[in-house]
Amino acid sequence: MSPIHLALVGVGKIARDQHLPSIEKSPDFKLVAAASHHGTVNGIDNFTSIEEMLAAVPAIDAVSLCMPPQYRYRAAHAALSAGKHVFLEKPPGATLSEVEDLHALAAARGLSLFASWHSRYAPAVEAAKGFLASTTIRSMRVIWKEEVRQWHPNQEWIWQAGGLGVFDPGINALSIVTHILPRPIFITKATLQFPENRDAPIAADITFTDAEGLDLSAEFDWRQTGKQSWDIIAETDSGRMVLSGGGARLSIDGVLKHAEPEQEYPMLYKRFAEIIRAGRSDVDIAPLRHVADAFMLGRRKFVDAFHD
Amino acid sequence: MSPIHLALVGVGKIARDQHLPSIEKSPDFKLVAAASHHGTVNGIDNFTSIEEMLAAVPAIDAVSLCMPPQYRYRAAHAALSAGKHVFLEKPPGATLSEVEDLHALAAARGLSLFASWHSRYAPAVEAAKGFLASTTIRSMRVIWKEEVRQWHPNQEWIWQAGGLGVFDPGINALSIVTHILPRPIFITKATLQFPENRDAPIAADITFTDAEGLDLSAEFDWRQTGKQSWDIIAETDSGRMVLSGGGARLSIDGVLKHAEPEQEYPMLYKRFAEIIRAGRSDVDIAPLRHVADAFMLGRRKFVDAFHD
Repeated sequence: MSPIHLALVGVGKIARDQHLPSIEKSPDFKLVAAASHHGTVNGIDNFTSIEEMLAAVPAIDAVSLCMPPQYRYRAAHAALSAGKHVFLEKPPGATLSEVEDLHALAAARGLSLFASWHSRYAPAVEAAKGFLASTTIRSMRVIWKEEVRQWHPNQEWIWQAGGLGVFDPGINALSIVTHILPRPIFITKATLQFPENRDAPIAADITFTDAEGLDLSAEFDWRQTGKQSWDIIAETDSGRMVLSGGGARLSIDGVLKHAEPEQEYPMLYKRFAEIIRAGRSDVDIAPLRHVADAFMLGRRKFVDAFHD
Repeated sequence: MSPIHLALVGVGKIARDQHLPSIEKSPDFKLVAAASHHGTVNGIDNFTSIEEMLAAVPAIDAVSLCMPPQYRYRAAHAALSAGKHVFLEKPPGATLSEVEDLHALAAARGLSLFASWHSRYAPAVEAAKGFLASTTIRSMRVIWKEEVRQWHPNQEWIWQAGGLGVFDPGINALSIVTHILPRPIFITKATLQFPENRDAPIAADITFTDAEGLDLSAEFDWRQTGKQSWDIIAETDSGRMVLSGGGARLSIDGVLKHAEPEQEYPMLYKRFAEIIRAGRSDVDIAPLRHVADAFMLGRRKFVDAFHD
């Protein structure tokens, strides 16, 4: 099968860390162009705007959008309007409503839109889903605590309104939880901690439930020094499940059941090729909907100023 | 046709002001029971919980839920699980996700769920929709300014997290705007003003656009003394449209085109009967989705404490 001609928009940290190496290895895609205000990719045509790139390189079949979410709609709309398939980094947009609009536009044009959630492709996620489907869940705790200075050094956009703050990593947890649980969940209570000098939260405590009264809570914190935690722990009728390392490892009652090398972004590109060839979209907004719900329902608390 | 046996849950201000008089006059419904922590309705059986009421009065066909949104899911879930059709006051829930869950439950049980938006039934709303469909819109301004002390005296729940604050009236404007505009809109910028002693905003400034770049803004304010404003003003190729009085009156270039007596809640009950008899639901979450988007994307600003 001939490769899909891909263009990358937004050449920043996530593009260099994950997208470019995954595209390079993918048998499905050939990178033909890039557009970015700040960065360039060696060996291909580079542009400073997506509009300019789309006009100059008609051979582009699909685009991957890696800029901050606040700027994603305009680029996605331009690409879909030009007849290109679109891969959206997470979160898929700055609002739920704009993602709904893009989804409708893709459907109307017969194009594939992919709202990607890389953590859903972490190695042990499917095994965890299978385990939970086989038992009764008594409670679940999500503990997502990392050091923002290490993972998002000087990324101003993440602290701006719409940048989501600690929900930027937290939404990875939510993308896993909504995938592995047997029923839809919803928030009943939330507290969001905002540094007094920032427009996005640095920590959040969230209580969820489901139609059957599930006891589910999540703790997100960006002030964790030392050991970093990306763990989902469930007490079940078949023992204690620990999905750790952001979905990398699964253990039941302390016995390691599943651990494989991480392949999240290669799998995302495999999935993108699959939906393009099947003529479908893959847009699940549930993780972003829970974040919006947390902001709408949550209490705001103010904490010490944060300086990078 | 025999009347639908209805029960009312949450006998507070909106139930007394609107629901009870509308049900009384409706040919479609007969009120058979009520449940409330605080109030009772004369001449029918009263209960203190919905669960108790559903168990005691099997003749109930449908329930209207008028309690604050933070408590609506549990009651709606109990009613749908007992095989009853459900009318949700606005907003339909404290989170988008719980409304999605109820919608799925209603569909699975073959029951009708009605997420009501009373302002969509204001007298001149359909005429405004027709006018906008016939022309090109250059810009739209939404001005929703009222005095909270007059309209929500001592309603503590409205100031609590999840009570939505000024978005409680503002969502009425959003329910009209999303109904009369030809294309879906989404927020690009928002500022929410929180009184320093409250968990919900007292004012908000919001900028929207749509796929065609519509210039749309909304100003919500709860500190308006004197003249109250519930106006939607559009500059169009066919003149200036003013939809005023919360959808009551339509004028084009200063000429009054449409003004009829207000019948919002009677029309809501007519619609509820219609969807029950047709075996359908009517759940449009767009207005609440825009509110969640405003909370997620918006900047928070702190203003003077508010005391009732």
